[in-house]
Amino acid sequence: MTQLSKARSGEITPEMEQVAKKENVALDFVAEGVAAGTIVIPRNVKRKNIDPVGIGTGLTTKVSASIGVYGKEGSIQGEVAKIQAAVEAGTHSIMDLSVSGDIDAMRKETLAVTPTPVGTLPLYQAVAEAGARYGSSLKMKVDDLFEVIERQAADGVDFLALHSGTTMDIVKRAKQEGRIDPLVSYGASHLIGWMIHNEQENPLYEQYDRVLEIARKYDVTVSLADGMRPGCLADSLDAAQVQEMVVLGELVRRAREAGVQIMVKGPGHVPLNQLKTTVMLQKSLCKGAPYFVFGPVVTDVAAGYDHISAAIGGAISAWAGAEFLCYVTASEHLGLPDLEQVREGVVASRIAAHSADLAKGLPGAAEWDLELSKARKQLDWQKQIELAIDPKKAEYMRRTRSEETTKGCAMCGKYCAMDVVSGYLGVSKQVC
Amino acid sequence: MTQLSKARSGEITPEMEQVAKKENVALDFVAEGVAAGTIVIPRNVKRKNIDPVGIGTGLTTKVSASIGVYGKEGSIQGEVAKIQAAVEAGTHSIMDLSVSGDIDAMRKETLAVTPTPVGTLPLYQAVAEAGARYGSSLKMKVDDLFEVIERQAADGVDFLALHSGTTMDIVKRAKQEGRIDPLVSYGASHLIGWMIHNEQENPLYEQYDRVLEIARKYDVTVSLADGMRPGCLADSLDAAQVQEMVVLGELVRRAREAGVQIMVKGPGHVPLNQLKTTVMLQKSLCKGAPYFVFGPVVTDVAAGYDHISAAIGGAISAWAGAEFLCYVTASEHLGLPDLEQVREGVVASRIAAHSADLAKGLPGAAEWDLELSKARKQLDWQKQIELAIDPKKAEYMRRTRSEETTKGCAMCGKYCAMDVVSGYLGVSKQVC
Repeated sequence: MTQLSKARSGEITPEMEQVAKKENVALDFVAEGVAAGTIVIPRNVKRKNIDPVGIGTGLTTKVSASIGVYGKEGSIQGEVAKIQAAVEAGTHSIMDLSVSGDIDAMRKETLAVTPTPVGTLPLYQAVAEAGARYGSSLKMKVDDLFEVIERQAADGVDFLALHSGTTMDIVKRAKQEGRIDPLVSYGASHLIGWMIHNEQENPLYEQYDRVLEIARKYDVTVSLADGMRPGCLADSLDAAQVQEMVVLGELVRRAREAGVQIMVKGPGHVPLNQLKTTVMLQKSLCKGAPYFVFGPVVTDVAAGYDHISAAIGGAISAWAGAEFLCYVTASEHLGLPDLEQVREGVVASRIAAHSADLAKGLPGAAEWDLELSKARKQLDWQKQIELAIDPKKAEYMRRTRSEETTKGCAMCGKYCAMDVVSGYLGVSKQVC
Repeated sequence: MTQLSKARSGEITPEMEQVAKKENVALDFVAEGVAAGTIVIPRNVKRKNIDPVGIGTGLTTKVSASIGVYGKEGSIQGEVAKIQAAVEAGTHSIMDLSVSGDIDAMRKETLAVTPTPVGTLPLYQAVAEAGARYGSSLKMKVDDLFEVIERQAADGVDFLALHSGTTMDIVKRAKQEGRIDPLVSYGASHLIGWMIHNEQENPLYEQYDRVLEIARKYDVTVSLADGMRPGCLADSLDAAQVQEMVVLGELVRRAREAGVQIMVKGPGHVPLNQLKTTVMLQKSLCKGAPYFVFGPVVTDVAAGYDHISAAIGGAISAWAGAEFLCYVTASEHLGLPDLEQVREGVVASRIAAHSADLAKGLPGAAEWDLELSKARKQLDWQKQIELAIDPKKAEYMRRTRSEETTKGCAMCGKYCAMDVVSGYLGVSKQVC
């Protein structure tokens, strides 16, 4: 029984109770959302030591950080340090996207050290293993892929990213339409290469029922990856993207019918004026399924600062209805992030998420800002730092940057204008 | 004759020509905008060595960086380094907001080293000098204030920030309304303290014609500062802010009647869902005068990351019609920025500005992104770095973060999935 099927049968689960309590919303609201599929609670039945997280309509916007062993320089130890940095920075989820090294060992470690839901992308491991076993990922067998999916689910992974909507028809559409950048999804590149080489339809689409069977067995939440997500602003909302979104809507319906929790992954690269349309379209075609967007960045030129570009896109997307933001780090488009970039990526996404929660008037959102504003008015530095979105960074900056502002003022002399204003307006005396 | 009066009489100035060329718009469009007051070209007739910048409707969004000597630790040398960092990062304007030290010397240095328009806030110097001369800024004489305004204009400052709209009525309104944070404008705090202590109306309002006379003499653009700008999200769009905006509209009209170029300063702290309303209200009340917003930050809790919060607010504001973004640095609310924070503050504002220009479809905006996207598809790293918004940072990150991605791929073996996709979709071979 999944959270979805339990909710449908009127059962209240401990996870629903925990989510309702954390979010400060009615338990019925959560249970009804899970039953309708507008809320998911990704929690594998085999997963231990997890603080359940609800993602969906009416709940606070969540953020996810991606890590993973990549290339010869990657190590499990290095990626565990990134997980710890991301968790300390307040991520609500970790995706382990390892593509090399001992992928099984990394995943087990991720599940052990992460207190949040964990997601993976099984195709990466299937491709790597086929490369090692057959000398080419193109020789991967369909059963190999499903074996990896089941293996990852059996380990306790809470949500699986699967490119089930990237059908051959859609690949042809992308070819016909003449995209600027035809393909940026790393997983979809491998999948489509395999499909073209083997002249076969996408097995994750053709055998979608088999995907759903595994997902139902472990209550894994399916995260439908958009293999055709545009790779630049110029390709945003093109025919291939929209046609795939239509298919994703079909797959949402079928997952729900099978009692499987489901969410949908989104772009990527979207200009400001297409963000709302993108989210509205997904909400309509995918029947209110939670939308997990990848940033999005709002310009192609911000390499080195894509966490900022993504914070702009994430804030507007979340305000428009996206409920889950995949972080983008400053080194996106240039290389892999270091610990500081992981940390700042998570915080940038949390700022986007919270600013949207404020705009949507979600319970508790405005109270946080109000409390900090009162501490600011009272010049209560300790409380301001405690309430900052990243207290460690705020404390550091205050310590290193405030020399000039803490030494008092010699400007006004005996009669201080600030004292006059304080008396009249009830302002705390500011340091000049 | 100011740019405004020349435009009205049908005269085309070299500044209008330079702006039209840089912006890739018709000369008539610029001239008509200047005549209508929807475009300003801040350039003091005494200013030398300046590359004129147009700010207003239909032109690309501009950003401004504030520097200034502050406290005992501040130095002219340190602030010049910040100007250079800001200019290198692509700022379109510098504001010298010095409040201590040799303010005259700092301003002269700023004007000498800055290739962009320069703005100042004369009240700071008037307050500092009154403190030194009379033992209290509260004893400042009205003539002292106007003498400083004239001195700064005569030095060649291109735009002057003046709190002419902060009348006693509005201060009373703020008191009655019970704001969370009654006052955050440093200049307005001194001004209001003076007004209350001396039981006098704001001289910058009462003697506004005298302000306009100086501005007209030097073709200084007046930047009407919003002394009552809210200091937290909870106070946004409150009665004091809106009442002041009504007065600012009156002052815009009077400036235009006097042939003086004018723009209006805005907040500050605005939740996502009030950004568009704030800009629309200013556009309506202030009759299309360029809007110079301070960020705005979209949450109160992002201390340490306020440049990111401000990029979100700036992008949406600019998309809604604000034409000029005052940068906010990461150390805002905590202390003064260092060189790196100045640099990142400018770039964050430029990302906001450019993402809005893309959304507005301004000439040339999309071409930049398209060119970079093509270079990205072709894996042309040199071109990607050249086209990045901050090439220096992009080059550094590529160099330090790409070890894993440049060493080639051992995943697929002899038959590479990427090769298959490349052949079919025309994708450049990606490094796996």
